[in-house]
Amino acid sequence: MKPVSDKLRAYFLLTAFMKVNKQHYRSVWIDGTTVHLIEQNLLPFKFQIYKAPKYTDTCKAIKTMITRGAGAIGGAAAFAMAQAAFEAKLHDYIEFIKTARKTIEATRPTAYDLFYSVEAVYAAALNSPEAALKKAQELADANAAAGKAIGEYGNEILDKNAKVLTHCNAGWLAFVDYGSALAPVYVANEKGKNIFVYADETRPRSQGARLTAWELHNQGIPHAIIADNAAASLMQNGKIDVLITGADRIAANGDVANKIGTLEKAIAAKYYGIPFYVTAPISTIDPNLPEGTKITIEDRNEDEVHYATGPNANNELQTIRLTNPGSHAINPAFDVTPAALVTGIITEKGIIEPNEKAISVLLKK
Amino acid sequence: MKPVSDKLRAYFLLTAFMKVNKQHYRSVWIDGTTVHLIEQNLLPFKFQIYKAPKYTDTCKAIKTMITRGAGAIGGAAAFAMAQAAFEAKLHDYIEFIKTARKTIEATRPTAYDLFYSVEAVYAAALNSPEAALKKAQELADANAAAGKAIGEYGNEILDKNAKVLTHCNAGWLAFVDYGSALAPVYVANEKGKNIFVYADETRPRSQGARLTAWELHNQGIPHAIIADNAAASLMQNGKIDVLITGADRIAANGDVANKIGTLEKAIAAKYYGIPFYVTAPISTIDPNLPEGTKITIEDRNEDEVHYATGPNANNELQTIRLTNPGSHAINPAFDVTPAALVTGIITEKGIIEPNEKAISVLLKK
Repeated sequence: MKPVSDKLRAYFLLTAFMKVNKQHYRSVWIDGTTVHLIEQNLLPFKFQIYKAPKYTDTCKAIKTMITRGAGAIGGAAAFAMAQAAFEAKLHDYIEFIKTARKTIEATRPTAYDLFYSVEAVYAAALNSPEAALKKAQELADANAAAGKAIGEYGNEILDKNAKVLTHCNAGWLAFVDYGSALAPVYVANEKGKNIFVYADETRPRSQGARLTAWELHNQGIPHAIIADNAAASLMQNGKIDVLITGADRIAANGDVANKIGTLEKAIAAKYYGIPFYVTAPISTIDPNLPEGTKITIEDRNEDEVHYATGPNANNELQTIRLTNPGSHAINPAFDVTPAALVTGIITEKGIIEPNEKAISVLLKK
Repeated sequence: MKPVSDKLRAYFLLTAFMKVNKQHYRSVWIDGTTVHLIEQNLLPFKFQIYKAPKYTDTCKAIKTMITRGAGAIGGAAAFAMAQAAFEAKLHDYIEFIKTARKTIEATRPTAYDLFYSVEAVYAAALNSPEAALKKAQELADANAAAGKAIGEYGNEILDKNAKVLTHCNAGWLAFVDYGSALAPVYVANEKGKNIFVYADETRPRSQGARLTAWELHNQGIPHAIIADNAAASLMQNGKIDVLITGADRIAANGDVANKIGTLEKAIAAKYYGIPFYVTAPISTIDPNLPEGTKITIEDRNEDEVHYATGPNANNELQTIRLTNPGSHAINPAFDVTPAALVTGIITEKGIIEPNEKAISVLLKK
């Protein structure tokens, strides 16, 4: 497979950090005016690039979760807006980019990064398609740079041979490059620190067993998948030095909303005196949300608990029932960890304590 | 299906409590000299009775986990010993039952209840096959009675409309009848208390989502399956009143070895001030084990984490890969919860505090 032009390949060699089959990749990029995205719905069982020649194709990719994760969605949306600007040249320019903006914004209406990115590229598109493309590329690069900065700061808290527990996937697949929770591990191992990662399976959607393990495997980072149930026992037996996760949203007081199960790991870490660091770009902090308890927990479809899809021995994808037929399941998508359980928040502008004062100082930087 | 003779059916109506398809069942019973066992490897997707006409068939059933759980294994082993005594009449009687005893003991050499049962029935068999059968039936009835007594004592800690969290399966399938962790729920709901059960999925073998949910569904107990990750969040939101689990082994100081994940739930329960009761027949307490830290954690095959088996949409059983190919998993089978996290131990002789003094008093009763 050669999804990247020679020019892009040269650029990637300089700017992209993460590897798949020993080649450098980003989760989303633009080549000419065609957006390329890693098809995350097929991972970890198949690595395939989805090519989106038109902005509506990129919208479809966001909507169907070919790409997912705040940073990656933001990058894809920025490129989609730039694509629309080039397509607009054949139509009523302003009318076309206005409609496109609305279409892109409607793909994942709860994704904050998406709105921010689209707005910035739209403003540039008012000048020219070339300006829009430049802006989109800048945003993608900025996202990758934020991941790298989080990695550099996070590297400071990792001792040589440290054993890290992580939950869900906050790796480079969820960003343009580097990621948040895994970025410190990537940077530390680049510096030869020999970090080992325990990846929580992260039921019910198994992002840890699938995406995090896939990333770590491709990057050559020593790791093991564990059932979510095993984390506290490993802590009890001195097998875990630090817990690092991403965040979906951080309240002004430092409470953290993240994938279901984060709270349970945070409580266990506290019980065993193990530090818990949350990693996130500053854009994840919501200064208008005073505390985490104000967040409504989203209940997702119970079928995520009842069914699983994967390849059988003949490599045919099969969806099977895991649970007792006739029983119902309850499936909360995320939980809220109180700031009292968080040791620190690692951002692209440094590590802060999880409290209102430190957060408000950070937001003014 | 009519796996039970009219005579047995009449006996079951008086003595068996648990229901499948609205009929009374035990997990294991003997009809004439044929042992019947619920085929637990097929649950929850297929309900089938495995018939073992000879003692070696019953051994096979124990070995291949057609039956599992300390109490159920003990019952099956007792019946197998009685079967052997009847078969021995055609051979050198003493020689035959001696060999049989060794064969039965070798099926699951770490199951303490098995040895206890086989020894008692072997002693009776020295008199006659009829005496052996009588003893085996007494032991099975005693196991069911212990479950019922645990249920009666456990019922006292359950308020009306209580919401119970349980982990793994310590229901009647693991015993001859009633079970341990679920027995209080069965008794309480028989008394109209309207108890609701959250069943932890219990990865990686999913005994909660499969066996516990199947039991509760058949018994008509309101329940919901949750991903193991969701427990702490439900506690935080006031959805859980009490945590009840079984135990694999209880140390003399009250430390509890049980299915992996029990520790994590116990820590979360402590954090939220939710009581945690361990249920177990007295035979689970090991007075020779001073504390839980002396227990070696068994690492099971990593494939239990990587693969899952279940029916697809065409009802064909399929085994699929759940995790990133190429990644390894670590799969500890159980964990040890320190006594400090346990509110009480519910036994067939009453509820005790989890400490050395209370346990030694109980063992002298």
